[in-house]
Amino acid sequence: MTATMFQPRCADFETRVQESFARQGMMRSLGATLARMAPGEVTISMPYAAEFTQQHGFLHGGTVASVLDSACGFAGFSLMDADSAVLTVEFKINFLAPAQGERFEFVGRVVKPGRTLVLTEGRAEAMDDAGARRLIATMSCTLMAVRDRGISG
Amino acid sequence: MTATMFQPRCADFETRVQESFARQGMMRSLGATLARMAPGEVTISMPYAAEFTQQHGFLHGGTVASVLDSACGFAGFSLMDADSAVLTVEFKINFLAPAQGERFEFVGRVVKPGRTLVLTEGRAEAMDDAGARRLIATMSCTLMAVRDRGISG
Amino acid sequence: MTATMFQPRCADFETRVQESFARQGMMRSLGATLARMAPGEVTISMPYAAEFTQQHGFLHGGTVASVLDSACGFAGFSLMDADSAVLTVEFKINFLAPAQGERFEFVGRVVKPGRTLVLTEGRAEAMDDAGARRLIATMSCTLMAVRDRGISG
Amino acid sequence: MTATMFQPRCADFETRVQESFARQGMMRSLGATLARMAPGEVTISMPYAAEFTQQHGFLHGGTVASVLDSACGFAGFSLMDADSAVLTVEFKINFLAPAQGERFEFVGRVVKPGRTLVLTEGRAEAMDDAGARRLIATMSCTLMAVRDRGISG
Repeated sequence: MTATMFQPRCADFETRVQESFARQGMMRSLGATLARMAPGEVTISMPYAAEFTQQHGFLHGGTVASVLDSACGFAGFSLMDADSAVLTVEFKINFLAPAQGERFEFVGRVVKPGRTLVLTEGRAEAMDDAGARRLIATMSCTLMAVRDRGISG
Repeated sequence: MTATMFQPRCADFETRVQESFARQGMMRSLGATLARMAPGEVTISMPYAAEFTQQHGFLHGGTVASVLDSACGFAGFSLMDADSAVLTVEFKINFLAPAQGERFEFVGRVVKPGRTLVLTEGRAEAMDDAGARRLIATMSCTLMAVRDRGISG
Repeated sequence: MTATMFQPRCADFETRVQESFARQGMMRSLGATLARMAPGEVTISMPYAAEFTQQHGFLHGGTVASVLDSACGFAGFSLMDADSAVLTVEFKINFLAPAQGERFEFVGRVVKPGRTLVLTEGRAEAMDDAGARRLIATMSCTLMAVRDRGISG
Repeated sequence: MTATMFQPRCADFETRVQESFARQGMMRSLGATLARMAPGEVTISMPYAAEFTQQHGFLHGGTVASVLDSACGFAGFSLMDADSAVLTVEFKINFLAPAQGERFEFVGRVVKPGRTLVLTEGRAEAMDDAGARRLIATMSCTLMAVRDRGISG
C-alpha cells in the first residue's frame, strides 16, 4: 500500500474512532485494542486466543477478517463527516499463511475517500515471540457513509 | 444458487464434518451449531449475541463472515478425500442488510468441486421472532484441499 | 442463484437496456449480443473470437469478465429509475474452467435492488458445437445508481 | 502496495513474459503494450480506444479488468518455474473513477509467491494529455501455477 496523507473533516476524529471502537462488542470479546491511528489509517492489535480458532488451532479466518474489517472501517470513519455513520458494503480477503503467532497486527488504510463510498485496504501480520512478522492476509473493503438513518459512529 | 447433487468421496463425511466443526473454538464461542448437512451443503445456525456486535448493536460483519466461511469450508470439506484438510484461500462477502434478528442461518454450498481448489457460495439470513427471513449477506469462497502438511480436518 | 421476480420502475425498461447496450463499444467489438431480458435478469451471448484470447487460445479472463460485468450491469439497470445511470462499484470473478467453446452465454441477475447500491450475480457458460454447457465463471458485482451527473443509461 | 524484491527462478524471465504476452490476442486487440518489467512486477500501457468503451464513452470496466488481469498474471509468471503455465483463479476489482484519459497504465505486482498459488495486486491509472495521473481501479488477483497440462506460458 502506498503512503497517503488525508485531511480529516472532524478535528476530534480520534475521539470519535475511540468511542465507536469501544462500542464494538466484537473487538472487546476478541481482546482487540486500538494500537495506532492517523487520518485514514488505523492499526488494531490482538493476542492469540484459543477461543477464536479454526479446527487446526490457528486463528479462524473469520477472526482475522473481523479485525481487518474493523481496521478498514475505522480508517474510513476517521475521514468522515461528523454526521456520518459507517457501514461495510463488501470486503474480500486473501489468506496467505496460517494465523499462528503470539500477537497479530491489523492495519486498515483508506485508498480513496468519497462522500458516499470509501475504498480501503487492510494487511494482517502475525508476530512470533521474537517479534518476527509474517503477512497472513490482505483485504480490500468498500465502506459507505450513512447519514440520517438513526445510527451514528 | 442452483440446487446441485454431489457424491461424497468419504462414506463417513457427516462424522468428519461434525468432528472438525467441534474442533473450531470460534464456532463454540459464537454459539454456532451445525443445523443441517448434505454432500456439498452445510447449514449453520446462530442466535443473536451482544458480544459479537459492531458499534450499532448489529452482529459484526466479521461474525457473519466467520460463520459463512465455516459453512462454505465444511460444505467443501464434505466432498473431500479422507486424507485432505481444508483451508480457505480467499472469500468475498457482500452485506445487504444489517444483521439484526433473533437467529441467523448460514448456508454454504459447493459450486464446483476440484481436487485442489473448490469454489463455494454462501448465503446468510436473519430471522425475527415471527420466523420471517431476510437475506443479509452473500459470500463466494475459494477453498484448497491440503494434503501431507501434518494437519487434518 | 435463486429465481427472483422484480418489478421494473420503468415500463420501457427493455428499450432503455437495448439503447444503452447499443452504446457500449466494447460489446460491439466483442461480437456480444443481447439474448434475453426480464426485469432484473439479462443474458448476453458471444461467439468464440480469437482476437480476445489469452496466451493458450482460450477467451481471456478479461473478456469473460467484460461480458459478465455488462450482463450484471444491465440486469441492475433494468430495475432502475428513468433518471438513473449505472456504474460498477466492484466485482469479483472466479474462473472455474478454461473459456473454450463455440459460443458463450453470460447471465446477470439482481440479488438485491436498492436505491443507491444494487447487488448482482453472474454466471458464464461455454457451449460446445453439440450444445453441451459448462460453467466457466461466476461473478458477484455491486452497482451504483448515479443521478444528476450528466450521464445517462 | 509495498515495494518488494523477488528472485526470478528463470534467468530468461523477461523473454518468457514477452513471448507469452505476444500470444495474447486480447492485448494486441486492445492496443496494449508491455511498458516495464521487473521480477514480480509488470507494467502495461494502453491508449484510449473508443472500441472498448461502455455506454458513457469511458473505457469499459472489463477493458480495465482485462489489462490489470494480464499485468497481474505476467507479474506472477515472471517468478514461476520454467515448466509452469499461469492461470487466473479469481480476481476482484474496485472502480474508483471513470476510465477517461489519453493513456492508461496498469501495474501488477506479486504480494506473495508460492509454488501453487500466487497472490498479486494491481493498480490502474488514467493519464490526461498533460500527464496528470489518476487512480481509477485496484485489483487483487489469485494465480495458479499449472504444470503438466499440455499448456505453457
